Parts: sequence; C-alpha cells; structure tokens
Amino acid sequence: MITRIDHLGIAVKNLDTAIAYYEKALGLKCEHTEEVASQKVRTAFFHCGEVHLELLEPTADDSPIAKFLEKNGEGIHHVAFATDGIEAQLKGAADAGVRLIHETPFEGAANKMVAFLHPKSTHGVLTEFCAPKE
Amino acid sequence: MITRIDHLGIAVKNLDTAIAYYEKALGLKCEHTEEVASQKVRTAFFHCGEVHLELLEPTADDSPIAKFLEKNGEGIHHVAFATDGIEAQLKGAADAGVRLIHETPFEGAANKMVAFLHPKSTHGVLTEFCAPKE
Repeated sequence: MITRIDHLGIAVKNLDTAIAYYEKALGLKCEHTEEVASQKVRTAFFHCGEVHLELLEPTADDSPIAKFLEKNGEGIHHVAFATDGIEAQLKGAADAGVRLIHETPFEGAANKMVAFLHPKSTHGVLTEFCAPKE
Repeated sequence: MITRIDHLGIAVKNLDTAIAYYEKALGLKCEHTEEVASQKVRTAFFHCGEVHLELLEPTADDSPIAKFLEKNGEGIHHVAFATDGIEAQLKGAADAGVRLIHETPFEGAANKMVAFLHPKSTHGVLTEFCAPKE
C-alpha cells in the first residue's frame, strides 16, 4: 500500500545555483548533498513536511539526468511513493497492465529498496516505489 | 514559511482513464472530482499522506492544461507548497529575484488563496504557493 510521497526528484543543470534558489527564494534548508556515482548525479536534499525534494545534477554526459535535461530542460524528473510492501506494489501495478522498468527492487540511496514504473504506462509521470530495506 | 507540499498538479488527457490508473495500478482512492470552470479543467483529487494529487483534464482547447499537454504531453504540471503566510512568501521570492505570475494571491479552489511563480525563475518547476483563506 502506498503510504505517502517519499520524495520528488528534480533535474537541475547546476546544483549550487538550484540550492541557492530553494534556500533564498523558497526559504527551505538544504539538509545534505551527496554524490551517487552509480547514477552519475550529485544530489541535494530538502525536507518539506513529510516529503523530501531531491535535486539532481548530472556528473557525466551519459547520466540519465543529462539525457533528461537535454530533452526536457530542468524540472520534475520523478515522483517516489513510499510503500509498505514494494514487491506487492510492483505486482499490483504489473497486474493492472503497467510496464515496469525494474521487475525486482534494487538498493537505492539512503538504505532503501527502489523500483521504477515506465512513464509510458503512468500517464507521463516517471514513478518510483520505495521502501526501507528489510 | 513553507510548511509542506499541499498538492501536485498532474496534466492528463482523459480524467476517467487516469483515475482508473491511479486506483487500479497504484491503489489510491479518488476522493472527488470537480469542474473548475474558470480554469477550464475537470479535476480529480487523491489523498496520499499529507499531499494531494490533483489530476487535471482540459475542458476546452484554450485551457492552460490543453496548451501544456500540446507542448509537453501528460505529466506533472505544477507543485503547490502550503505556506503559513502567502503575502510574505511571495515577497520573499520576489526579493530573491523570482519572477511572479501573480503579484497578489487570488482565490483558488477549496477556499484557498493561491499565487504562482514563473517556471523560468524556478528551475523549471511551475510553483504555486497556497494558504487557507483568512
């Protein structure tokens, strides 16, 4: 079952400029930054109620975020839903005819298991399920 | 001060198909649907933790959502942040150099005062501030 939105992933060209915007213009506070080598991104996290904003800057031209920026420009990249059972959640989506990017969850950042649905099946929203690692 | 994300606005071509997706594939429950004549949209609301998902289907070719769909296809249209003081929040953003779509808040749906920042100033995220009407 989906319990809440865990985070919004937001693609940005320059992390420092984007952090300054979220801090100065919106008054949010950057909690920490982190490089995720496997995804070729630098990330910055902001707390906003029970949701995190996760800014994503590519660190290489073949980063998925670099490709997204080239095609779409800056903006929302994905929405991550927290679920209390990621395998059941994936099965429910697949049973409803949704195309999965990941058939089985894999370990993402922050000790979480994650998996993505394909945006062609989700009305244009790149959708992530995530759950704490058991 | 921003206290949480109030809702995500999601542009869809067909509300009924999109509602079926969110209910069957994600297991969320549609709370209600509503036509907002002033914005030329039909909307459907889903509760997800403290955030609402607001699906938006255009009801006319000159609806802002029709224009968005034509340019971008289906997907996240805007992010609305709940604030405890919308005028102060707008002033803070303007003082930080952000271009405002609305200099002063206006009455939106659900008895809320709302105002939008321009996505050219917000790293690609069409950003809404909202607060309960006083």
